This record gives sequence, structure tokens and C-alpha cells, in this order.
Amino acid sequence: MKDFYYYNPTKLSFGKDSVGFLGKLLSKEHKRILLHYGGGSIKRTGLYDQVMDILKERNLEVYELPGVVPNPRLGLVREGIQICKEKDISFILAVGGGSVIDSAKAIAAGAKYDGDVWDFFTKEAFVEEAIPLGVILTIPATGSETSNGSVVTNEDGMLKRSFNSDLVRPEFAILNPELSMTLPDNQTFAGITDIISHVLERYFTHTENVDLTDNLCEGTLRAVIKNSYRLKEDPQDYAARAEIMQSGTIAHSGLLGLGRADDWSSHKIGHEISALYGTTHGVTLSIIFPAWMKYVYKENPARFARFAVEVFGIAPEGKSDEELALEAIEAFENFLRDIGMPTRLKEIGVSSDRFEEMAKKCVLSGPIGQFKVLNEEDIIKIYQLALE
Amino acid sequence: MKDFYYYNPTKLSFGKDSVGFLGKLLSKEHKRILLHYGGGSIKRTGLYDQVMDILKERNLEVYELPGVVPNPRLGLVREGIQICKEKDISFILAVGGGSVIDSAKAIAAGAKYDGDVWDFFTKEAFVEEAIPLGVILTIPATGSETSNGSVVTNEDGMLKRSFNSDLVRPEFAILNPELSMTLPDNQTFAGITDIISHVLERYFTHTENVDLTDNLCEGTLRAVIKNSYRLKEDPQDYAARAEIMQSGTIAHSGLLGLGRADDWSSHKIGHEISALYGTTHGVTLSIIFPAWMKYVYKENPARFARFAVEVFGIAPEGKSDEELALEAIEAFENFLRDIGMPTRLKEIGVSSDRFEEMAKKCVLSGPIGQFKVLNEEDIIKIYQLALE
Repeated sequence: MKDFYYYNPTKLSFGKDSVGFLGKLLSKEHKRILLHYGGGSIKRTGLYDQVMDILKERNLEVYELPGVVPNPRLGLVREGIQICKEKDISFILAVGGGSVIDSAKAIAAGAKYDGDVWDFFTKEAFVEEAIPLGVILTIPATGSETSNGSVVTNEDGMLKRSFNSDLVRPEFAILNPELSMTLPDNQTFAGITDIISHVLERYFTHTENVDLTDNLCEGTLRAVIKNSYRLKEDPQDYAARAEIMQSGTIAHSGLLGLGRADDWSSHKIGHEISALYGTTHGVTLSIIFPAWMKYVYKENPARFARFAVEVFGIAPEGKSDEELALEAIEAFENFLRDIGMPTRLKEIGVSSDRFEEMAKKCVLSGPIGQFKVLNEEDIIKIYQLALE
Repeated sequence: MKDFYYYNPTKLSFGKDSVGFLGKLLSKEHKRILLHYGGGSIKRTGLYDQVMDILKERNLEVYELPGVVPNPRLGLVREGIQICKEKDISFILAVGGGSVIDSAKAIAAGAKYDGDVWDFFTKEAFVEEAIPLGVILTIPATGSETSNGSVVTNEDGMLKRSFNSDLVRPEFAILNPELSMTLPDNQTFAGITDIISHVLERYFTHTENVDLTDNLCEGTLRAVIKNSYRLKEDPQDYAARAEIMQSGTIAHSGLLGLGRADDWSSHKIGHEISALYGTTHGVTLSIIFPAWMKYVYKENPARFARFAVEVFGIAPEGKSDEELALEAIEAFENFLRDIGMPTRLKEIGVSSDRFEEMAKKCVLSGPIGQFKVLNEEDIIKIYQLALE
């Protein structure tokens, strides 16, 4: 196990009535807040009205910034920063999924910074102060509700980049599984793919003596897989929605990676697809993760064999680690297909035309990954494995 | 799954060099701190000098209160409160195991309260303010390093009672597994029994649809059991010490019980033994938990059957849930004996003389438990099952 530092102070309010606790969770010192959200879905479901009623009861001046799109854009982040600076905003309430939360985090950090917020994403600057923020989660997926990361796309060059800072971990996250019941299936299962990927990026490591976090990773994966099948049967299954929402938060809280070297190659390789084609994050992961596995499993077949046995219940008797690894990758792909996710680029209309361009952008800051360190050529081969 | 609220802001600094981060973790606003510890062991190991050097470098006025004993006493807590009030202490640093931390938490709450600190333990008052505290952990066991609870014994009537408040969750916990290497075996394994019990008090529930936390509980138990055997082989095994220390923190962080009804009967029934006989907490659990299991398993044999299969790897084929339950209880007792823990009251010289007195004290505030609600008679029966 490696040494680690961990800090996750986000207050979680979980359950059917959790939105009702918003007033209690908001510190009384705030006078002017920014309400940040996506499109009209929170208005259709009545969530917007419920939130506004609570904010008005608290006599808060509310400034609104809707319009966040999947793969949130830097342009809107800059708009939000301007509002925060002009209106002396002291709190940001993000209502939505990971894109809204990530956009809110970038605004929170940028509003307390004199330079350009993109500096945080290029690592030219580090966050020293941020406006506090809170979250009402509507899509279990990115785990951004308690994480310290934000991923934003810069329209200038279509670069999708991230920054991390404990200063942007939300103060609170309101998690009502019922809010996820109106999601279309493709969003539900793209979110689930993201949740699983957050565990896998931590699970595939060469760090030894990490029994506890190995077991926690595997237990989370099994819970997510089981409840995904329940949701496939019945999207209105509250208990399954609750398990998925809780798992999504745990998966990216940082806890499952404590003391482990983690990877994140599949996320980065997938980000370049989203940046160019606007593809949903979970869809890129569903396509890239199996391809990454096929490319890297020989680095540590024993780890993939364990994945086979502990996550998919594959019987190990009489099989080599490599055989088990290949069975596990097949089982993972089958699961993704069972929940309706694409696993090949051709299914989403992406050809090999821009593989080199994407791979080049992926290694702009140097090779990526730790399970296997990947350079431009490796990444092109992974795109090729994902093609058809 | 039940609705829940969760907040655990303790900063964890984990690893061989973690004590070196003490200076960074201490907020600069503090001028006068109380250093709270047990006996001479931290002086023998050099930890005391290392800590004092860091505190002096920071020009802190340090007031010392040593003398915490296992099953920490209210008398010393009151002394600490007086020091804090007189010297205007703004931070308490607890260096030691759960007893030191629990004592520090009671001091932290009592120092900001005009009445008698015991009011918190009798629920006549609730904590509204507390001095912040930090921890350097030397014994992985109680999980008090990130928990919101404190257990203290009132010498007047030898009542062992607890209170909970998020205001006494430590600001930081420094976790260096090496510090646990000098522990005698009996302390190491009593601590491990406590860790396991913290998981079991949450695991045995009738709450349904808790796949994620079931898996997390089972994964933690398997990691602790595996690494206990490693430590039995070689007490200097750093990797195993690290797994146990990390597990101890997770086990009582609150995370494993989210959304579940939990029990705590075995803790309470055991506390009465400690209060009368001064028995180590982990020893009472090692004796009471198996007896509790034998008394209650028929309430939900399926849950105990799952415990058999998922934690002890017992093959379920052709067995009824009740058979599996009994095999699991036997496997658990065997594990406890393997690590050298007593499993019967006669082994620690406790006879049936005071069973009624202990049972009466145990239900002073009403029946206990949720897996099976226990009254005075039930508790006497559990003591009898634990006798020999």
C-alpha cells in the first residue's frame, strides 16, 4: 500500500425527502447565490420550483445560469465567473448531473482568480480559493458530487481537460434517487458505465497489498452490475436507483483508490472522442475500456484473473490467468451490451480518420497511464482495437 | 435502503512519514494546545519527542494531560475540561488509541459547556460546540479517529456510556501503521476484534436492498481476517499493519452503515463487563459477539447464511440457512481463537454472580438492539451463553 492523504468533507443527504433539507444545508451567511443548471428537465419535473421555493423562503437573491450541455463548455464557465464577480456571489448551487457540477466547480475556482480559469486546466495555475458550492444530483454518473475534480471542454481547439482541488469539493450533495427515475435509459446506463469506469481506473493497478481497497472495488462493481440488471428490467425500481446513486458517489469519492496507483488512461483516451464528436462520456468509456483492457492485460494477467473471479464469478479451475483475463474482458463487454451500451466506435459513426489527431492531443502533456504507460502509438492501437 | 445523512470531514494522513505532516495539519490560529495521552509508551517509542519537536517549532504553548487508561475515566475528562477552561486551550491533540481519543472528545465537548460533561452521556444535554481536536493513532481498534462517538466510564456507579456528535469528529487523523508495531499481541488482536465488531454491528440488519454496503462490509471483514493471520505469523509485517489500520478507520467511519438499521447490542452488553471488571473492550466483544449470534440468528437465518458464504467462504450446497448460520458462528469463534482471543467469560475469570446487575444496567434507558430487541432477560441469557 502506498502512503496517502484523504479529505472528503462533503455532507451527504440521501433519500426521497433529501431536497427538503436544502434550507438546512445552506449556510445562513449567504445572501446571493448562483443557481446553475442545464436545460428544461428540472423545470418539467418540478424540481426547479421546489428549489426556488426553498431559496425564496430563505430570502436569497438568486441569479440563474442555465444552459450547461453534456461535456460542459468553457464559454459558459466564463459567463458564470463574470456573474459571480459582478454580483458578489457567495455560493453556487448546481442542480443536475456531472456536467453541471463540473461547470459549477470551474466557476467557483475561476471567480476567485484574477487570471483566466483555463490556467487551472493547463496546470499553469493552481486553485488557491474558491466560492463554496452545493449540489442537487439528478444523474448518478460522474461522482462529481463529492469529488475534487472538474472536466471542461475548451471550444477553442476542442480540448477536454480537467483540474483537481480539494477546494472545489462540494459542501453538500443532495442525493434523491427518485430524481434519476425520469432519465431515459441511454442516460441511465451511460451513467452506470461511468460509475463502473471510476472503479476500474483504480482497480487496475500494480500496487500490492491492497486487499481492503481491492475488496471494496470488487464489492462496488458487483453491486452496480446487479442493480443495473434490475434497472434494465424496471427503470422505476427505487431500491435499484438508490444502490446506483450511492455507488456512483462512493466510486469517485476517492476512497476506493486510497493507497493505490491509479490509471485514468481510458478516461483520457475517451475524452478526445467527446471533444471532437461531442460523444457522451459514458459512451466513450463503454467503447474504450474494453479496448484498453485487450491492449494492456498482459502487463498483469493475475489482476485480470482476479477481476474475472471476484467481479464476474467466473470459475478459475483449470484456466491460466491469461485465459481468465480474456474471459473477464468478454464478460465485461457482454454486460455493457446487455445494458444497451455500444462497445465499438463504428456503432457511433466514428471512423479511423482522426485517430492520429486524437492520440496526439491525448499525450500533449506526455505519456499517460500507469498500468501500462501509453504513448501516441499505443493510443492509436487502442482506438483501432475499439473500431469494429 | 433507508434514507441517511453522512458527514465525515476528518483529514487522513496515512503512511510511514505521516507524523511529519503534523505541523501542516495544525491550523495556524492555535496558540495553546492540550496534549492528551496515556502512559509512557509514546515516550519509549520516541513518538512523544517527535511530536513535541514539531509543536515547539510551531511555538505552541503545550499543556499536557497524560494518564488515560483503557476504558477512559470521567475523572480525567473533568481534569482536562478544567485545564482547557483555565488555559483557554483552542486545540486538543490526542496521541494514542481509542481511549485517549474518546477522552479527548469528551474534554473537547465539555470545555465548551457550562454544565457537567456527563450530561452528554445521559442525553440530558447535546453538544452544541466543541474545541477542535486532532489524532495521532497508535492502536488500530476503535475507529474513534474519524468517528463521531466517545465512550467514557463514570467511576461513580461504574457506568460506561457514550455520546455522539459530528462536532467531535477529529479534524485530522495521522495514521502511521509502524506505530502499531510495538503493540503486544493481545492489544493488536483485541483491536482487530473491535474492528470486526464495528462491521458486524452494521452488517446484521433486516434492512433490505443494501447490496453495496453488504459488499463493502464483507470485503472489509475478509481483508481484516486475512491480514490478521499475516500478523499472527509476523507482527512486524508492515503491509498487514497498514491494511488493519486502514480497515479500522473505514470500519467505524460510518460509511459501512449508511442506509442500514444497525444494532450495537454486543457493544452495550460488553460495556457492562468492562465497567465492572475493567476488561479490555475487544475482549468483551470476542466473548459476547458469538453468544449474541447464537441467541439471535433465528431472527434472520438468511443473513447469517450469507455471512457464512461471503465472509468465511463456506460452501452453501445442500445446507439450510440455519445450518450455514451455525457453521458461520463456529467459523467466527475459530477465527477468534486462532488470533488468541478468549471466547468465554470463564476464560477471563468472570462468573455468573453479577449477570443480573449487568443486564439491569444495560437496559437502564430501555431495551437495546434492532436485529432482535433485547430486554433484561434476553441479556442474561446472552451472558449465560457466553459463560463457558
